[in-house]
Amino acid sequence: MKTFDIAVIPGDGIGKEVVPEALSVLNTLAEIHGGLAFQFTQFPWNCEYYIEHGQMMPEDGIQILQGFDAIFLGAVGNPQLVPDHVSLWGLLIKIRREFEQSINIRPARYFEGLQSPLVHPKAFDFIVVRENSEGEYSEVGGRIHKDEDEIAIQNAVFTRKGTERAMRYAFDLARERNGHVTSATKSNGIVHSMPFWDEVFQKVKVDYPEVKTASYHIDALAAYFVTRPEQFDVVVASNLFGDILTDIGGAIMGSIGIAPAANINVNGKYPSMFEPVHGSAPDIYGKGIANPVGQIWTAKMMLDHLGEVELGQKLLEVMEAVLADGIKTVDIGGIATTKEVTQAIIQRLKNDK
Amino acid sequence: MKTFDIAVIPGDGIGKEVVPEALSVLNTLAEIHGGLAFQFTQFPWNCEYYIEHGQMMPEDGIQILQGFDAIFLGAVGNPQLVPDHVSLWGLLIKIRREFEQSINIRPARYFEGLQSPLVHPKAFDFIVVRENSEGEYSEVGGRIHKDEDEIAIQNAVFTRKGTERAMRYAFDLARERNGHVTSATKSNGIVHSMPFWDEVFQKVKVDYPEVKTASYHIDALAAYFVTRPEQFDVVVASNLFGDILTDIGGAIMGSIGIAPAANINVNGKYPSMFEPVHGSAPDIYGKGIANPVGQIWTAKMMLDHLGEVELGQKLLEVMEAVLADGIKTVDIGGIATTKEVTQAIIQRLKNDK
Ligand SMILES: CC(C)[C@H](C(=O)O)[C@@H](O)C(=O)O
Ligand SMILES: CC(C)[C@H](C(=O)O)[C@@H](O)C(=O)O
Repeated sequence: MKTFDIAVIPGDGIGKEVVPEALSVLNTLAEIHGGLAFQFTQFPWNCEYYIEHGQMMPEDGIQILQGFDAIFLGAVGNPQLVPDHVSLWGLLIKIRREFEQSINIRPARYFEGLQSPLVHPKAFDFIVVRENSEGEYSEVGGRIHKDEDEIAIQNAVFTRKGTERAMRYAFDLARERNGHVTSATKSNGIVHSMPFWDEVFQKVKVDYPEVKTASYHIDALAAYFVTRPEQFDVVVASNLFGDILTDIGGAIMGSIGIAPAANINVNGKYPSMFEPVHGSAPDIYGKGIANPVGQIWTAKMMLDHLGEVELGQKLLEVMEAVLADGIKTVDIGGIATTKEVTQAIIQRLKNDK
Repeated sequence: MKTFDIAVIPGDGIGKEVVPEALSVLNTLAEIHGGLAFQFTQFPWNCEYYIEHGQMMPEDGIQILQGFDAIFLGAVGNPQLVPDHVSLWGLLIKIRREFEQSINIRPARYFEGLQSPLVHPKAFDFIVVRENSEGEYSEVGGRIHKDEDEIAIQNAVFTRKGTERAMRYAFDLARERNGHVTSATKSNGIVHSMPFWDEVFQKVKVDYPEVKTASYHIDALAAYFVTRPEQFDVVVASNLFGDILTDIGGAIMGSIGIAPAANINVNGKYPSMFEPVHGSAPDIYGKGIANPVGQIWTAKMMLDHLGEVELGQKLLEVMEAVLADGIKTVDIGGIATTKEVTQAIIQRLKNDK
């Protein structure tokens, strides 16, 4: 029996509702498989934990997580309790950085059964590879003076290593897919970091002569995600640009509520982390209507990472079939509850076995 | 006879095709009005000029423009000839900064006759107020080390003055419109500039108790522009976020090719500048198929600024009627040429007189 040790952090808001659903799905898959098991260890680290302990996770939180095969995260943040930059940097971004999860991968594809807001969603199917450890998300910076003279300075830090790592990841992925990489830049307006980004892209692409490339400024690219998403295969972007593009990816699928993400530690030294793109949505927490599909699709990405690609594929197909049957939550035009959607997926997995 | 002295910079690519069209439209409006005239002075400052002179405009370019009532710009940039950051910072961004055009205003609205890519474009009608003089677009920063150790640092600089100015502009505008301001932030990920942005927003809004407000992170907001654009009235954003949001605004209208922009000098010391949101599109230059509507709508924004609000309104109505009649360029699903669209607008202005 192969056992995967998974650290589970449901986090805040609807994270606490959708994570248990995804765990049930994973357990169902383990049963079906027969030869594997998941061991889930739950950590109640969230904004309420912060209120009680003054920090988002214990002092030795990182060491505690270190030994797991993967981290399965719900959503973090509840600005009513803790300012977002405190909660996120104390948990989500802290884990991303401490565990060198330098790559964030987020797929977006057209799903039958989802109401895309686009007239012609066609069959888009792309993956955004987001640099996940540096760039515009940096603690470097500060303020000077006060009142009407106050100035805030924010430093974005782009290293050759970090930039190249994200790009190579994208090119490698494109080789397994449709052989096309699009780079998100803004070198016409942002004159230090983005020309550097472009230069590195030019250098890296030389090593992948069989991969076609394109480069667009982020403003145009954001627009193209709306007007012609079918043209993209792999898109590589900085931390901030990747963040924005993947939410647009969620939007054109029909809902940010279904999009998954993987935070990958590429050198294998530390566990990777899997979390949906959606936030904690404290406003709908507790109503039983949160969409579990984002978290469940996230489980599929974790399965892929753990080497259980076939199980992951099965899950994706079942998820798509259930959506196509119209069993979905209100945010994507259905009437089902969180639990009903999960049960439909579980039932179908069992029937299809 | 009231005469407006307008500096005209067609710029690169399709700028050179659509600017003359917009000038014809302005001349037609002047004729119809009877009591006013435009005096256009053309400046051939663009990437070809750079090739010849080593700079995008002459040494005294800024002084030359100083005396005009307004600047009417086409589009800048031709990366085949000059790297974008050189051409843009040497002309477009230079003028924005030298003339303290600290506010960029860009409307987006649903137009009958345009094919929005959205299934339910509904009647969205919003304006993005973009901080236009600082923020993420800054020359502060640089590089250290080389090859695999190279690092690029980009500083974003947010001043209280600049931030507050953009926000007050947005609140003032909202008072004349539907009384709602949305702030674009990213304080969960970007921990120096964006919490500062949020604080200033909280302070400024106290002075506008009758205006309702909302604040969303840029990733979510970009997605909402696609999924529920009808919910926005005035959106205030930093330089980069405003840039991205307005391209999405263009996309949901049906084309970036129709969106206009005003670069406003709020203290009245220097001329303001008017330019479409679209780029110079060197790839379609010379084919006679560029969409002139963005440049013509830009002329309407210039008319508003010059105090000719009624003429501007007439132009907008005629523009909309011509689009509704299906007289449009290929990029928005029509078959008309650049000149045919312009002529249709001019003819209708004359007939409606
Ligand atoms: C060309 C570029 C520098 C410019 C900008 O980003 O400001 C353009 O995209 C715009 O929106 O006016
Ligand atoms: C919550 C926030 C800090 C985070 C990010 O911007 O990285 C989220 O938007 C995401 O995309 O995972």
